[in-house]
Amino acid sequence: MQHIKRLFDINPWKISTTQLHKEDLRLQESLTSIGNGYMGMRGNFEEDYSGDHHSGSYLAGVWYPDKTRVGWWKNGYPEYFGKVINAVNFIAMDIFVDGIKVDLATQDAEDFYLELDMQNGLLTRQYTLKTANATLAFTFRRFLSLATKELGVMSLEVKALAGEAVVKVVSKLDGDVRNEDSNYDEMFWEHKTSSVEGGVGLLTTETIPNNFGIERFAVTAVMKNETTAALMSETAEDYLVTQTYEAHVTPDTSFNLTKKVVIVTSRDIEAPNQAEKAMTLLNEVTEDFDTLLVEQTNEWAKRWALADVVIDGDDEAQQGIRFNLFQLFSTYYGEDARLNIGPKGFTGEKYGGATYWDTEAYAVPLYLALADPEVTKNLLTYRHNQLPQAQHNARQQGLAGALYPMVTFTGVECHNEWEITFEEIHRNGAIAYAIYNYTNYTGDESYVKAEGLEVLTEIARFWADRVHYSKRKDAYMMHGVTGPNEYENNVNNNWYTNYIAAWVLKYTAEMYGKFHAEATVTISDDELAKWSEIVEKMYYPQDEELGVFVQHDTFLDKDLMPVADLEAEHLPLNQNWSWDRILRSCFIKQADVLQGLYFFNDQFTREQKQKNFEFYEPMTVHESSLSPCIHSILAAELGMEEKAVEMYQRTARLDLDNYNNDTEDGLHITSMTGSWLAIVQGFAQMKTANDTLSFAPFLPSIWNGYAFHINYRGSLLEINVSKAGVVMNLVSGPSLEVTVYDQVYTLTDTLTVTLKEA
Amino acid sequence: MQHIKRLFDINPWKISTTQLHKEDLRLQESLTSIGNGYMGMRGNFEEDYSGDHHSGSYLAGVWYPDKTRVGWWKNGYPEYFGKVINAVNFIAMDIFVDGIKVDLATQDAEDFYLELDMQNGLLTRQYTLKTANATLAFTFRRFLSLATKELGVMSLEVKALAGEAVVKVVSKLDGDVRNEDSNYDEMFWEHKTSSVEGGVGLLTTETIPNNFGIERFAVTAVMKNETTAALMSETAEDYLVTQTYEAHVTPDTSFNLTKKVVIVTSRDIEAPNQAEKAMTLLNEVTEDFDTLLVEQTNEWAKRWALADVVIDGDDEAQQGIRFNLFQLFSTYYGEDARLNIGPKGFTGEKYGGATYWDTEAYAVPLYLALADPEVTKNLLTYRHNQLPQAQHNARQQGLAGALYPMVTFTGVECHNEWEITFEEIHRNGAIAYAIYNYTNYTGDESYVKAEGLEVLTEIARFWADRVHYSKRKDAYMMHGVTGPNEYENNVNNNWYTNYIAAWVLKYTAEMYGKFHAEATVTISDDELAKWSEIVEKMYYPQDEELGVFVQHDTFLDKDLMPVADLEAEHLPLNQNWSWDRILRSCFIKQADVLQGLYFFNDQFTREQKQKNFEFYEPMTVHESSLSPCIHSILAAELGMEEKAVEMYQRTARLDLDNYNNDTEDGLHITSMTGSWLAIVQGFAQMKTANDTLSFAPFLPSIWNGYAFHINYRGSLLEINVSKAGVVMNLVSGPSLEVTVYDQVYTLTDTLTVTLKEA
Repeated sequence: MQHIKRLFDINPWKISTTQLHKEDLRLQESLTSIGNGYMGMRGNFEEDYSGDHHSGSYLAGVWYPDKTRVGWWKNGYPEYFGKVINAVNFIAMDIFVDGIKVDLATQDAEDFYLELDMQNGLLTRQYTLKTANATLAFTFRRFLSLATKELGVMSLEVKALAGEAVVKVVSKLDGDVRNEDSNYDEMFWEHKTSSVEGGVGLLTTETIPNNFGIERFAVTAVMKNETTAALMSETAEDYLVTQTYEAHVTPDTSFNLTKKVVIVTSRDIEAPNQAEKAMTLLNEVTEDFDTLLVEQTNEWAKRWALADVVIDGDDEAQQGIRFNLFQLFSTYYGEDARLNIGPKGFTGEKYGGATYWDTEAYAVPLYLALADPEVTKNLLTYRHNQLPQAQHNARQQGLAGALYPMVTFTGVECHNEWEITFEEIHRNGAIAYAIYNYTNYTGDESYVKAEGLEVLTEIARFWADRVHYSKRKDAYMMHGVTGPNEYENNVNNNWYTNYIAAWVLKYTAEMYGKFHAEATVTISDDELAKWSEIVEKMYYPQDEELGVFVQHDTFLDKDLMPVADLEAEHLPLNQNWSWDRILRSCFIKQADVLQGLYFFNDQFTREQKQKNFEFYEPMTVHESSLSPCIHSILAAELGMEEKAVEMYQRTARLDLDNYNNDTEDGLHITSMTGSWLAIVQGFAQMKTANDTLSFAPFLPSIWNGYAFHINYRGSLLEINVSKAGVVMNLVSGPSLEVTVYDQVYTLTDTLTVTLKEA
Repeated sequence: MQHIKRLFDINPWKISTTQLHKEDLRLQESLTSIGNGYMGMRGNFEEDYSGDHHSGSYLAGVWYPDKTRVGWWKNGYPEYFGKVINAVNFIAMDIFVDGIKVDLATQDAEDFYLELDMQNGLLTRQYTLKTANATLAFTFRRFLSLATKELGVMSLEVKALAGEAVVKVVSKLDGDVRNEDSNYDEMFWEHKTSSVEGGVGLLTTETIPNNFGIERFAVTAVMKNETTAALMSETAEDYLVTQTYEAHVTPDTSFNLTKKVVIVTSRDIEAPNQAEKAMTLLNEVTEDFDTLLVEQTNEWAKRWALADVVIDGDDEAQQGIRFNLFQLFSTYYGEDARLNIGPKGFTGEKYGGATYWDTEAYAVPLYLALADPEVTKNLLTYRHNQLPQAQHNARQQGLAGALYPMVTFTGVECHNEWEITFEEIHRNGAIAYAIYNYTNYTGDESYVKAEGLEVLTEIARFWADRVHYSKRKDAYMMHGVTGPNEYENNVNNNWYTNYIAAWVLKYTAEMYGKFHAEATVTISDDELAKWSEIVEKMYYPQDEELGVFVQHDTFLDKDLMPVADLEAEHLPLNQNWSWDRILRSCFIKQADVLQGLYFFNDQFTREQKQKNFEFYEPMTVHESSLSPCIHSILAAELGMEEKAVEMYQRTARLDLDNYNNDTEDGLHITSMTGSWLAIVQGFAQMKTANDTLSFAPFLPSIWNGYAFHINYRGSLLEINVSKAGVVMNLVSGPSLEVTVYDQVYTLTDTLTVTLKEA
C-alpha cells in the first residue's frame, strides 16, 4: 500500500549505491548528509553539477530572522521566522579536464560508486570519465572531524586508467550562497573580507542586518590545499576565494589533493579574532588525510560502543537503526548547551527553526539512556534559559505564564500559522514532561527543585489561564487547540491536551509541595486551590460504549473508516488531498490519544490501552515521522508483534525508504530516535516510571536477536535478547534492581531470563 | 463604548471640513473618494504631498494576479490573489510658487476647506498659502463624468489675495505607480509609449506578464490642459508625460487651468486602437468645466430622484445614508455586466478581488428595488458565466458540483486562507439565494428556468457531496466550516451553513420539478432522492431549553458573556486581541444564525426570532461592516426600536464615523447598502416573500419622518412615513396589492394608513 523509494543498497554499516540518481539527486543528497554537531552539509558534489539538486551547508546556531510571510496577518503572529541558513560552501572545487568542466549532469560517468560509512562518517564517491584523450578515475572523500569540530577534510584523487589529460582544480571557498527557503528571495549574507596569503585562502561573510534585534553572525572559513600539483593562480574576490592547481595526469602520475578547511563563527570567536583563531586551528592539523581518518574512526567507535543496537538476522532493520543513530549524533551529541536539535539537522532547510517539542518528547529518552545525564540537563537548561521568551509568547496571546514555542532559535515563537502558533499548545506539556522524565529517570532532583520548578510553574500558569469554565457542563475545558494530530485543528477538548495540561498542574503542585522550602518561585494557596479545582473538574471527552478516550469533542461524529479502505493512490494524504478534505476526514497524522497513553503509560490499564489502540491505529496514516514509533511501542506492549515490527520498519527506514515522499527536503532528524525507542521501549519494553527499571522483551520472529546498552543511574547495562533468552550484563557501575517480566532481580553481574513466548 | 472618529461636518448633502487632517490623511482620502463605475480614486491631492497618505486611482476590471503569498502552502490553495491595481495617476500636477514646490505636509495652509458634494460628485478643495512675496488662494475641483465614463475633469485656480508670484504647474500623467497591497513588492505596470503632440499628452502602460494565463491590460491616458498660462515645456518619458505652464499671478490676474483626461483600457479597446479612440473622446469634450459640471449634476439628479432616502429630523442619519448610496453608485450602477461590486470599490486596495458574496446577500435587494431588473440579472449572469470556474474550485477541494469563490475576478478562487477558501462555503448558498431573490421579487421566471437552474444544480451537487453521514447520530452533517461569523472557524455544523445548504437542495429540486421540461440540466431521480434524504436528515444544532438555534456544535460550552461586560479598551477585538483569543471567545463578528433568520424570515416564528435575537445580539461586536444592518432589520421587526436605530446609525455612519477604525484602508462599499436595507426592510418592514409586497413601518422617535422609492414588478412606489401616517404613492406603473400592517390594500394612486404606535 505504501509508496517506497530505496536508492541505497542494504548493508549493516554502509549507505552505498552504484547508481547516480540524477532524477532523485535531492533525495540522494539528503541521505548522504554528514555532520559533526558543529556543522554539516547535504551530500552535495564537490565539483560543479548543473542538474537539479539542492546545495546546502549549515553551521549549528547560525541563523537569520526571515521577515514573516503570511497571506493575512493575525494579531499575535511573530515578526520573523528563524531560518537555518545555507552558509559558505567550502567543499566546492571546479574540475577541468583538458579545459572542459566536469559536470555529471551532462557527462556520462561510469563505474559510479557512492558510499557513506556509518562507522566513521566518511563520504566516498568514485566514478570514471572517458574524455577525448583519456579515461580518468575520480575519487572524492570527505568527513567532518569529531576531534576538531571546526575542521572539514576533503581528498580528491584523479587517476588516468588510459591516455593522458591536463587536470585543473579550482578549489574554492564560496560565500555566494542562498537559502532555497527564503520568504522574500533575500540573500542572507554580505561579504566582509577575502584573502589568499601564504597558501591559505580566507573568506569572512556576515549575515545581513535585520530589524528584529537579532545578532548578526560572522563566519570565517580558511582553507589549505595540500597537493603536488602546480599552483596556477590564487584569487580573493567578494564572496569567493580560489586556489587553482593543474597537473598532467598519466597512468603513472595521478592528481592528489587534500583540502583542509576550518570554520569559526561569531558564536565562539568575535569577528576581529576569527582569522587568527582559524589559522591557529588550521596550522595544528598537520596530519594527512588517512591519519586524520583513523582518529575520526576512533571517535565514532566510542559513540558506537555505547549506542549501537545490534540486530541479528535483519540487515534492513540493522541498517535503518544505525542510519538513524548516525544522523542523530551527527546533528547533536550534547556538547554545546546553547544548541538544540533541529528537525532537519544539517540536511535541509524545511521547517526552519532549531527547536521543536520533538526534542523533549522523542530525543530526551534516548539521550537519558545513551549519554551522560548532563546532556539531557543541557537540553532542559536550554528551555530554562528561554523562560522569559516563553513568557513573552504567552503575553502575545494575552495569557499568563509561559508558552514554549513551536519553532524557535531564541525562545520567541517563529511559527506563523495560527492553528499551530496559537493552538498547538500541547507542546508546552512536553517541556514539562521532560523535566519529569529527567528527574524520574536519573533520580536527580537537583534540577526540578530549582530551575525546573520555575519552568513548571509558568507552564502551569499558562494552562490555568488557557482553560475556561463551562457553566453548562460544570467543567473546565480547552477550546481552540490543535493536538499532535495536525490533520485536525482548532478543535475543542483535545483529550491529549486536556490530559497533559491537568497533569502539569498536578505535577507542579506536587513538586512545589515537596520542594517549596528551597524553591525560587512562590505559588499562593489560592493559586494551588484553583489548579486543584481545574484538575478535579477537567473535562475529558470519552465514550463509554467504545471504551475510548475521544480525540476531541466531535470526533465520533465523523465518517469513521480505516486507512486500509482507502485506495493506495490517496496516500500520502498530504500530497493528494486538499487540506480541507484532510481536516474533515477521520485520518490521523500521528499518535494523539496514543501519545498520551505512551507518555503516561503507568496511569492506564491494559484494557484502556488496547481499546484505544485498536480504535485509533487503523485510522492513523503516520504522515508525521514522529508517529510510527509510538505505535510500535504500544503494539509491543499489547503483544501485537506484527504491528510492532511493521511500525519499527517504518520508523527505522523512514528516510532510507522515503516512506513519506519528502526526504528530498532533508532527513527527519528529530524522529531518528524513533527506531531506538521502538526497540528499547517497545520490543524490550523498558519502563522507568516510579523509580523502577523494568523490561519485558519480545523477539520479533523474523530476527535472531538484538542487543543494546543503556545507562541507568550510574550503571551501564548491556541487554541481549535472543532465542537463548534475555541476557543482561552489568558492564559498569553499581548493581541494581531490575524487573524482568514482572519478576524483580538484582543485577550484579549477568542475569539470564527465559524469553517469554509471544 | 465604541470608538468613533468623525473628520467631516454634518450636512445633509455634503461631506466637508475646514481642517486638514494630516494625522488622518488616509482616512480623509478614503472618505473623499469619487468614482463613476468605470474608474475612481481616493481623495488624493492633485499637487505633491510628502506626508503619509495613500495614493490610489483604480480602473474597474483592470487587475493583476499577484502570486500567492502564504506562510505554509496547503493543497488546494489558489496560485494567485487577484488585486485591484493602482493605475495611472492622472490628477497629478506639481505646483511651484516662485520656484518652491507646494506641499501641504510641510507648508502651513490657511482657510483650508474640503468638500465632496454628493449631489454631483464634485470634489472641491481650497486653501490659502502665504509665500515670501504673496498670499495665494488655491481652488481645486474635480469630478469623474457620468455622461462620458472615460472622462475625468479637473480645474485649478490660483488667485493672489496679496502680493505677486510666479506660479508654475507641471500637469502630469504619471504611470509610475505601485500597489501598497502587493505580495512581493512588485511593480505591476510596464511602460509602453508616451508622447506629447498637438498639446495632448499620451501615456500607455500595460500590466506586466504573469504566469497564470491572465490577460494583460493596456491602459491609455490622454490629457489636455486648457489654460491661458504660458506653455513652458512638454516631456514624454517612460511612465511620465508632463506639460508645464507658468503665469505671473497678481491680484488682478489669476492662474486658471482645466485638465481633461480620457482613459481607455483594453477591456474595451485593443491596445493599437487606444490612442485614436482616446483622442476622439477627448476631442468631443469641448465644453468648459462649469458646463460639464451642470451635465454631471443632471445625471446624478436622475439617480437621486429614484434612490434618495429622505430623513426628516436627523441630519447625521441623512448624511450617512446619502453617503452610502453615493459611494455605492459611484462604484457600480449596473452598466457593465462584466463587472461586480468590490469590497473597497475605487477607494482602496484591501481585500483585493472584485466579487464577494456581499453582492448577492446585501447588494441585490437594493438593486432589485432601485434599478431596472436587468441590473440584477446582470449580477446573476456574471455568476452564471463563471460556472466553469466555480466547478474548478470545487474540484480543487476534491468535491463535486460548483463552489463559488470567496474572492475573485474570473470566478477562480483567489483567497488563500484555508479557513476561508475551503471552509467559508456558506457563500455558495448566497449565490443560490440571489437567484431565488430575483425570481421572487420580480416574478420573472425566465432566468431561473434556464441559467439559474444550471447554477443551482451545481451548487446543490456541491452541498450533497460536502455533507457527510454520521452513523452515530443518523444525520447528515457538515464539519469543518466557517460561518458568516469569521470570529470562529473550522467549526462543525454551523447552523446557518447547514440550513442554507439544505434550503438550496430543496429549492433546486422544487425549481427542477417546476421547469425540468425546459431545463438545460438533468437531475436523475436517484440524485433527487439523495438530496431529499439529506434535507430530511440534516442535523441542526439547537437548544430546546434556550429555544435557540446553536451557532455550531459546541458554541454553548463557551464562556458566554455579553459584549457590554467588556471594558471599552478591548474593542475592536480584531485590533486588540490575539486571533486565538477572538476565536475562543463567544463574541460574534457579524450576524450568523441571525443572517439565516433574515434570509429565511418567513420560515420562522416571531418567538424563534425573538429568542435567537435576544441570545446572539448581546454577544455580537459588529466588527464586520455587514453586521449591523441585519440586526437593525430584525430588531425593527421585533419592535426593539432603540436597538434598530442604534444599528442603523452604525451601518449608516460606519465609515463617516470610522466605527471599526479601518476606514483609512478604504470604504466598506459592499455594506453601503446596509443603511438602505435597515430603513426599507427594517424600519418600513418591507417584505416580498411569496409574491406579496408588504410593509409594517415604524418611525424612530427621534425622527420626524422618512421617505423612499421602490420599483416593484413594474410599479414605482413612493413611501412616506411620518407622524401623519404611512403615505404610499403610486408614481408610475400598474396598480398593485400592498399589505400594510397585515391589511391588504390595492394601491392605485395614494394610500394613507395610520402609523402604528411602537
